[in-house]
This record gives sequence, C-alpha cells and structure tokens, in this order.
Amino acid sequence: MSKPNLQIALDHSDLPSALKDVKNVGDIVDILEVGTILLLQVGDEAVKCVRAMYPNKKIVADTKCADAGGTVAENVRKAGADWMTCICSATIPTMKAANNEIDEIQIELYGDWTYEHAQQWLDAGISQAIYHQSRDALLAGETWGEKDLKRVQKLIEMGFRVSVTGGLDVDTLKLFKGMPIYTFISGRGITAAKNPRLAAEQFQKELIRLWGE
Amino acid sequence: MSKPNLQIALDHSDLPSALKDVKNVGDIVDILEVGTILLLQVGDEAVKCVRAMYPNKKIVADTKCADAGGTVAENVRKAGADWMTCICSATIPTMKAANNEIDEIQIELYGDWTYEHAQQWLDAGISQAIYHQSRDALLAGETWGEKDLKRVQKLIEMGFRVSVTGGLDVDTLKLFKGMPIYTFISGRGITAAKNPRLAAEQFQKELIRLWGE
Repeated sequence: MSKPNLQIALDHSDLPSALKDVKNVGDIVDILEVGTILLLQVGDEAVKCVRAMYPNKKIVADTKCADAGGTVAENVRKAGADWMTCICSATIPTMKAANNEIDEIQIELYGDWTYEHAQQWLDAGISQAIYHQSRDALLAGETWGEKDLKRVQKLIEMGFRVSVTGGLDVDTLKLFKGMPIYTFISGRGITAAKNPRLAAEQFQKELIRLWGE
Repeated sequence: MSKPNLQIALDHSDLPSALKDVKNVGDIVDILEVGTILLLQVGDEAVKCVRAMYPNKKIVADTKCADAGGTVAENVRKAGADWMTCICSATIPTMKAANNEIDEIQIELYGDWTYEHAQQWLDAGISQAIYHQSRDALLAGETWGEKDLKRVQKLIEMGFRVSVTGGLDVDTLKLFKGMPIYTFISGRGITAAKNPRLAAEQFQKELIRLWGE
C-alpha cells in the first residue's frame, strides 16, 4: 500500500500569512491547497503566487464549485492550479464542464450525498472525493468514528481516490491504518503548530511508519 | 403584492468588466450581487469596489459558502456585503455561524435538497432561498416549468423570501405573475444585452406592470 499524500490547506484570510506558512512547509508536503477562504479573499492571485513559488508541486484550488464549472475551471487552471474541487450538490453537467477544463476534479462531500450520486460522479469520469469529518461531531468532541471509516472504505471500493480531512493530527492518522487513503489534508493541524515545519515532518514520518515509503 | 426586487449578478472573470457593467445599471437595479466567479478571481476587493461605488445599495456576496461560515461571513461583511449565500449542502452549524456574522444568509438550492432541509434552515433563522432553474433544463431548451413554479410556491408558503434565477429575460417574468417572488436575479440577461441600461429598465418596467409599484 503506497504512502498517502500529505496536503496542506492554506485556509488563511490574507495572502501574506498564507505565503509565510506555505514557505515553511511547501517542500515537505505533497500537495498544496489554496483554500476557499483564501480564494474568496484574494482571488486567483493566491494560486498564481503559490504556483510561482512551487512550479513543480501539485496545486489544488478549493473552489467548491457549484455552478459555471467550465469558467471556474478555466480560470483556476490559467492561474496555475492542477486540480479543483466541486461541491457534491453541483449538477453533473457542471462537474463535467469543469472536468473538461482542468486536469482533475475532486468532489467535496458535504450534507446528504448518496452512493447513487457517487456512482454518477464516477460515470462522469470523476474519481477523486474528499471526505470531511462532520463539524458537528468535531464540535461535540468526537473524532473519526466507525461510520466515517465505513463510508470512506465504501468510496474506495467504488473506485474513488479518497482524501480525508477534518480535525486530523499526527495521532489520528493511525485510525486509518490498513486503508488505502489517497491524501490526508491538514490545515491548522500544521499551520497552527508551534513549529509548522516540524509538524509537517512528523505527519510524513507517521505516514511512512503506517503505510511504508 | 409588492414589486419583486431586481438583482444584477456580476459574474465576470475580471474586475474592470464587472465595474463597467455595474456602473451602467447599478442605479436602476435594487440589489447588486458580487458573483462567485468574480469573488474567486478577484477576492474581497470586488465587494469593496462595489460598496465604494454604491454606498447605499444592498450588496450580496455570492460565496456559496459550504464551510467555515463564520470566517467567510466576517470577511465579506468587513468588505461591505449585507448578505451572503450558503450552498444548500452546508451543515446547519455552518449556516448558523455565517448568520451570526452578517445581516442575512441566502440558501442556494442546488442538487437534491428536500423540504425537510428547508424547514431546518427556517428553524435556524434563515428565511431567504435562491431557486435556480436547472442548467440541464436550460441546455435542453426548456424554460421555467410547472415543477419549478410549484417548488418556488411551496418555499414561499413555508415562509421563505425566494429569489429566482436562471435564463430569465423580460419575456419570462410573466410566468411568475401572481406569485410573491422576492427577487429576480439576472446576469447576462442584462449585462450581455446590446444596451444593458435599457435592459435593466425594461426588467423594472415589466415588474411594475405585472406586480405594481
């Protein structure tokens, strides 16, 4: 089983603090995400800056696109993004239009999506999904539960490469041991650490310990 | 029955062309929308510019927020927005967090939302919803059908102020005659017209003809 990717989510409200954090950890992580908050505040300039700093890294624009998929995808691709996200409640034509304009689309799973929807995404040529631990559960002090892990496993079995995110830290990675997770996404789990670079290194070390090189 | 509002959606990919269009019609329409495409490209600067140009107009930031509602709402409020949109698949805590930070939230109806969800939004203190004519239907050459009108009517009866959008032009407004629509949203129906100012004036004139002053 290959080592899952580590993705840093830049969910900052301003460009300087995002660039400071990405400079610290960009070389260590596998995928750089320009988060929704940052995009809504700074626009495609954020993607352009991260691309200029890291010409060879995979970059995701977390647009959570719900409509006008072709235009949004074309815009972020031109700014330098490899991938972008669509919200699960977008229509299939929106997803397809986006998928035609950029290398890959990832479906953001929020709310009451179903496996029937998931099959429609696969049928539309989309094979990446992002599973969020519910904010309700996190606020209630829960961590990743059996229900979450079963859903992730089912999506993997359907043929998705699944990214997981939400309240992840180095200690929670082992909950997923034995599962072929594609990517772990962390934002403040890395950027809010006392030493973000060390935190990113510890994430990678733990991923290698659990999944191998 | 009071005249529905007319909202211009600025769905441009760059700031200058958005500002050109809003300058032409901003005084005629009732509500100015900084569209998702524009936000993702330009960031909150777009909201700030429109607010500076129109200090007394209602401004909506079409964030289609799916997560981090409190942060996104605080950011767009600080930039000058009165209202913002949340995607229907956002969780209730996300919607509530946004609603606490800004004057009003509007729920964007995409995908398989249910009236049960809609009641949860009302219970959370959210009473604006935006009904989109399906893109599939528009691409297939359909216009607003009975099914759409029934759904809009049901939402109004539940207690929502409902905005409608998707392929609207002056000729389609009469389909809604007799229904207390809160707002008609038009983007290219106005901005792509030969004379956008005239198009906006014709929209308003038709609204007054059908609903009264």
